[in-house]
Amino acid sequence: MQDFTFQNPVKIHFGHDKLAKLGDELKQFGQRVLLTYGGGSIKKIGLYDRVIKAVREAGMELFELPGIEPNPRISSVREGARLCKEHHIDVLLAVGGGSTIDCTKWIAAAACVEHDAWDFFDYEKRPPVERALPIVSVLTLAATGSEMDSGGVISNPDTNDKRGRLSPLLFPKVSFLDPTLTYTVSPYQTACGSADIFSHLMEVYFTTDHSMYLIDTFIEGMMRTVVRYAPIAMREPENYEARANLMWASSWAINGLVGCDKPQAWSCHPMEHELSAVYDITHGHGLAILSPRWLEYCMSNETLPKIAQFGINVFGIEATMPQKEIALRAIDALAHFLFDTLGLQRTLPEVGIVDETHFDSMAFKAVLPYGGNLPGFRPLTKEDVIEIYRMCM
Amino acid sequence: MQDFTFQNPVKIHFGHDKLAKLGDELKQFGQRVLLTYGGGSIKKIGLYDRVIKAVREAGMELFELPGIEPNPRISSVREGARLCKEHHIDVLLAVGGGSTIDCTKWIAAAACVEHDAWDFFDYEKRPPVERALPIVSVLTLAATGSEMDSGGVISNPDTNDKRGRLSPLLFPKVSFLDPTLTYTVSPYQTACGSADIFSHLMEVYFTTDHSMYLIDTFIEGMMRTVVRYAPIAMREPENYEARANLMWASSWAINGLVGCDKPQAWSCHPMEHELSAVYDITHGHGLAILSPRWLEYCMSNETLPKIAQFGINVFGIEATMPQKEIALRAIDALAHFLFDTLGLQRTLPEVGIVDETHFDSMAFKAVLPYGGNLPGFRPLTKEDVIEIYRMCM
Repeated sequence: MQDFTFQNPVKIHFGHDKLAKLGDELKQFGQRVLLTYGGGSIKKIGLYDRVIKAVREAGMELFELPGIEPNPRISSVREGARLCKEHHIDVLLAVGGGSTIDCTKWIAAAACVEHDAWDFFDYEKRPPVERALPIVSVLTLAATGSEMDSGGVISNPDTNDKRGRLSPLLFPKVSFLDPTLTYTVSPYQTACGSADIFSHLMEVYFTTDHSMYLIDTFIEGMMRTVVRYAPIAMREPENYEARANLMWASSWAINGLVGCDKPQAWSCHPMEHELSAVYDITHGHGLAILSPRWLEYCMSNETLPKIAQFGINVFGIEATMPQKEIALRAIDALAHFLFDTLGLQRTLPEVGIVDETHFDSMAFKAVLPYGGNLPGFRPLTKEDVIEIYRMCM
Repeated sequence: MQDFTFQNPVKIHFGHDKLAKLGDELKQFGQRVLLTYGGGSIKKIGLYDRVIKAVREAGMELFELPGIEPNPRISSVREGARLCKEHHIDVLLAVGGGSTIDCTKWIAAAACVEHDAWDFFDYEKRPPVERALPIVSVLTLAATGSEMDSGGVISNPDTNDKRGRLSPLLFPKVSFLDPTLTYTVSPYQTACGSADIFSHLMEVYFTTDHSMYLIDTFIEGMMRTVVRYAPIAMREPENYEARANLMWASSWAINGLVGCDKPQAWSCHPMEHELSAVYDITHGHGLAILSPRWLEYCMSNETLPKIAQFGINVFGIEATMPQKEIALRAIDALAHFLFDTLGLQRTLPEVGIVDETHFDSMAFKAVLPYGGNLPGFRPLTKEDVIEIYRMCM
C-alpha cells in the first residue's frame, strides 16, 4: 500500500431528469459553446435536439464539431482546437461515449496552446498541460469512464500510434449520466463497454503489492455488478436498473478511487491500444480477447493468491479447493463471461487480425514507454507481449 | 433508486509521509492561519510541534483555538468566529477528530456573518451558508468522516440540543489522512470510532426503496472492512494496514457516494444525538447501543429481505436458511461484533443513563425535524423512539 493523493472534483448529475440542468451548467462558463459528437447516433435518439434546445434556451451561441471517430484521431483534436480559437469558444460540450469525451479533453488543452496537438503525446516533447477550456459532458455509453476521469486516448494513424495521457485540468467540470440515454446501445456495444469497465478493474486489482482490503472490496463489488447487469442490459436494453448500475460502475472503475494505492503499470490496455491503433478494432473487444490470456500468462506462485481471490469473490468459486484449481477456474469463468455470456468473439482472427505481421512492432510499442519492461502484475517484455498476442490467435 | 447529484471536491493526502505538504497546502489560502484542536492529545503525540513547524516554515502567522470539546459546543464556534474576525484569519487548520473538524467547519461559516452562530441551527431562522473560510484538516481519529464531508454537528448545552447541518461550502479544501497518527487512539476510542463508521453505513444501507446494487456492494465492503480491522487495530494499535483501512473507510462511508441514491432519513443518529446532547456520552458508543435494538425494532415482512442480505453479505451467514432466521442471526452477529468483539457496553445504564427521565423529551426532539414521523427504514414516531430507548435499558 503506497501513499497517494486523491481528488476528483467532477460534478455528476445522475438520473432520468437531470438533463434539465444542462443549460444552467453550461452558461456559468460563458456564452460560446462548441458541441462535439460522433457519428450521429445522438440525432437518432433525439438527444441532439434536446441539447440544442437547452443551449438555445440558455441564450448561448452554438458551434459544432461532428464526426469524432471511435478511437478518436489527432486530426479531430486539431480541427476542434482550430474551431475553438476561431470562434473564441468558452466551454466544450461533449455528447457521446468515451471517444467523444477523450477527444474533447484534448481539444480543450490544444485550444490553449500554439504548438501542434500531437506534441502532447510525443515522448520527446510532452509539453505540460497548463490550461484547458472547461468541459461539460453528456454520456451515452457506459465504458471508458472518461466522464469522471482526467485522461484521454488519441490515435495518430500517420504513425500507427494510440496514446493516452492524464492531466488534472482535463476532468470534466460537470457530467450528465442519464442511464436512459444508453437504452439504444446495441447488445454488442453493451458487451464491449462492459468488457472495458471490467478490464479497468482488472488492471488495478491484479497486483502483487500489498493492496488495501477496502479497495479490493470496492473492485470486487464493481466486477460483480458488471457480471450481473451486462447480460441483463443486453437482453433487456431498457432495463433502467441494469443501465444505471453499469453506468455508475463505469465512472467509479477509473476515477482514481480504486487505483490510488497501486503503483503498478497497466498491462492489457497498452497491449490493446496497439491492436486498435493498427487494426481499428473496438477497444473493449480487444481487451476481452486479451484479458483471459494475459491472466493465464501471469500465473505463478506469486500471483496465484490474487487470482484465486478473484475467483472466490467475483465468480463465487468454492474457497475450499486447492488454490491453483481455484485460479484456473477463475480464468475459465472470466473467459466464459466474456465469450459465452457477453457473446464476444474469442480470437483475433475472428475480429479480422489474421496474421502476425505487426506483432513485433506492436509489442515493441506497448513496452516502449516503460523502457522495454512493462512493470505489471507479471512484468512483461516485448517477447512476453508477442506470446500473449499469439495466445489470442 | 432516485436521481442524484454527486460532487466531492476534497483533496486527500493519504499516507505516512504526506504531512510534508501541509505548509504548501496552507499558504495557497493566505498568510494567517487559525489552528483548532481539542484537549491536547495532539501535543502528546508530537503532532502539535510538527504542525507548528510546518506553519512557521511556510512563513505564516499562527493563531490558536485549543480545547474544542468532544460533542463540540456552540460556545467554541462563537469563540473561533470571534478570533477569525479579530485576527483577519485566511484559513482554518483543524487538527483532530470529527469534533474538532465539525466545530471548525461552523467556525468557518460563522466567521463570515454578523448573526449568532447558533442561528445556523435554529429551525426558525436557518440562514443560508453563503460564504465560509477555507478549511484544511489533519485527521487523528477514524470515525465521523468529517474530513471528507460537508457537515458538522454542534451541541448547545443551554437548550440540550445537538444539531447537524450540511453545506457544500463546508467541505475541507484539503485533508491529511495519515494512519500512523491514529496509532495512539485507545482501544475504546477505536471501538467507538468503528461503531460510528458502521452506523453511517447502516443508516443508508437499510432502506426499503429500490437501491443500487453497486452501492450495496460498496457499503457491504466497507462494513466487512470495519468488522475485519477494528479488532486488529484494538489489539495491535500500530498495525498500519488496519489503521489505514479504517481511516479510508471512515471517509467513504459518509462522503456522499453511498448515500446519494437514497432518499430516506437516518434513524440511529437522530436518536443518538439526543442521548449525547443530554448525557454527553461518546457518540459512537451511543450508536452501538442503539443500532441492534433499532434493527430488531424495524423487523417486518417488508424489511426482512434487506436485513437478511446484510447477514449474508457482511457476516457470512449461510444463505440457505429461512429469511427470518438469517435476519435474526444478522442482528445477533451485529450485537456480538459491537459488544463482544469491540467490547462496548451493551446498555444505557452501563454508560450512566440509569432512568427514563428524559426519554420523552429526547424522543420528541429526535422526530421534531420530520414533523413527528421520522421516515427511516421503519418510520418512527416519538413513541417508537421511546420504545427503542427502553430496549436499551
